Amino acid sequence: MDWLYTFDLIGCGVFAISGAILAFKRKMDGVGVLVLAAVTAIGGGTIRDLLLDAPVFWLTDANYFYVIFVASFGAVIWINQTQKLPAKSLEFADALGLALFVVMGTEKALSYGVSDITAIIMGMMTGCFGGMLRDVLANRVPMILQKELYAMCCIIGASIYVLALHFIPGIAVALGFSTVFILRLAAIKWHWQIHVFRYKN
Amino acid sequence: MDWLYTFDLIGCGVFAISGAILAFKRKMDGVGVLVLAAVTAIGGGTIRDLLLDAPVFWLTDANYFYVIFVASFGAVIWINQTQKLPAKSLEFADALGLALFVVMGTEKALSYGVSDITAIIMGMMTGCFGGMLRDVLANRVPMILQKELYAMCCIIGASIYVLALHFIPGIAVALGFSTVFILRLAAIKWHWQIHVFRYKN
Amino acid sequence: MDWLYTFDLIGCGVFAISGAILAFKRKMDGVGVLVLAAVTAIGGGTIRDLLLDAPVFWLTDANYFYVIFVASFGAVIWINQTQKLPAKSLEFADALGLALFVVMGTEKALSYGVSDITAIIMGMMTGCFGGMLRDVLANRVPMILQKELYAMCCIIGASIYVLALHFIPGIAVALGFSTVFILRLAAIKWHWQIHVFRYKN
Repeated sequence: MDWLYTFDLIGCGVFAISGAILAFKRKMDGVGVLVLAAVTAIGGGTIRDLLLDAPVFWLTDANYFYVIFVASFGAVIWINQTQKLPAKSLEFADALGLALFVVMGTEKALSYGVSDITAIIMGMMTGCFGGMLRDVLANRVPMILQKELYAMCCIIGASIYVLALHFIPGIAVALGFSTVFILRLAAIKWHWQIHVFRYKN
Repeated sequence: MDWLYTFDLIGCGVFAISGAILAFKRKMDGVGVLVLAAVTAIGGGTIRDLLLDAPVFWLTDANYFYVIFVASFGAVIWINQTQKLPAKSLEFADALGLALFVVMGTEKALSYGVSDITAIIMGMMTGCFGGMLRDVLANRVPMILQKELYAMCCIIGASIYVLALHFIPGIAVALGFSTVFILRLAAIKWHWQIHVFRYKN
Repeated sequence: MDWLYTFDLIGCGVFAISGAILAFKRKMDGVGVLVLAAVTAIGGGTIRDLLLDAPVFWLTDANYFYVIFVASFGAVIWINQTQKLPAKSLEFADALGLALFVVMGTEKALSYGVSDITAIIMGMMTGCFGGMLRDVLANRVPMILQKELYAMCCIIGASIYVLALHFIPGIAVALGFSTVFILRLAAIKWHWQIHVFRYKN
């Protein structure tokens, strides 16, 4: 489907920008920016494909690299011009890319015949593990392990998508997509957290 | 073999608890606990299967996820109730899981026709690399690279298992298993270390 | 080709030594040295093979492990005897190994039928990602993201190799190899950097 592919490339671009921003904070050089941007953008889908033993999606499609290159380049110019990080304005776009990655990742896993629960985990990985690799390379504890329900939005959205496929397949994509998207924006706005541990002082 | 599978799930549960404990120390949220627990429990076997180009073992078996979920949940409740880390009491169980993972990992690699030395390395990876990924995600130097002969117990145990397969296959599993198990407990008790570097002051 | 294989083993040995040196700085034990040496030496090629869905190159060839073992052992003895790090004297050998890994990685990727740009990225990965894994395990921001054009030399060399294959295939290997080698040594000597970000203050 053409528009799915377009959204996928947009998601890649947005994720690449978040990698470039972290590269700026870590004072990386030109290649560091590109590597960190690429890892963020295609890392999650790559891990998914390796685990499914599917052909890695970017092996035969260089468009992903062009998008990553253009997005990183744009981010560098923007940061140099304005000396501001576009973090806030990115959150909307990031939630968009995330929602799409989760639905597409779950869908791809299902098409390889795995069980529902495995597909949900694959959807979460597609959305979250690129950012996890990015944070590991930048030598910090991955954000998805600590903040604002990032991974939980993905798991809930993927679950609803899989459930909907059984009962109302016609609107499953729309339902899964908007669940991730809305939950993510809400989690940012109201600073939702799941504190499972009680710490005494 | 049914009892091997049961032990495998027990090993997963124990490793998941060690992931949850580290998540507590790093003040992670609910998803962080689950991700860190899962990576610790199934990371080593996953890397082994990817390298062997074998189907990843949990792709078609959701039981591993149920075990990880229950073990993490139990660990969270225990930690919140007692405000103590069960680290000491876990060491026995951890050594048990380790010994089993090493023997099963070596066995699986051999069944894919690799050489003895490669199978030994795969056995070590199955036992150790889950904990290595856990430590990388928690942003610390992996324990297996620094302490108490963790990986060395695995290499010796896997080697004895492979050797025994050639000469006394009937007791190879028991021999490999008990080697890892006893060496590991001994290394903890007497703080064995292999210092290869001499540091001047 | 026999001499390519020989060079490959030499490259592995050199990279293994760089892993052992970092293990010394991090005060790791005997197994830590071996694991870090092995990850540095064969990590890049392993990631390449996983992504290409090729059989991992060391699965059926234990020679790589012998080389890693001997090189690490030699490095430990040297460091203990002299209490000096052979960092400077290694740079020449490291550039040699790097140049060879890049050309061989690009060649292997092309033989699996990927596009030119993907092959170039695979060549870069073969040369650089072993060191990146080494740095992640040692809990520091990977050197290739921050310093001295490490990855850029690989990308330029791989590009020239791919270009030459189209027009002057007879000297493509020599051209790609010497590009990486000379660029790398020049980048070290004159401290070349690509600063893409302007920092105020």
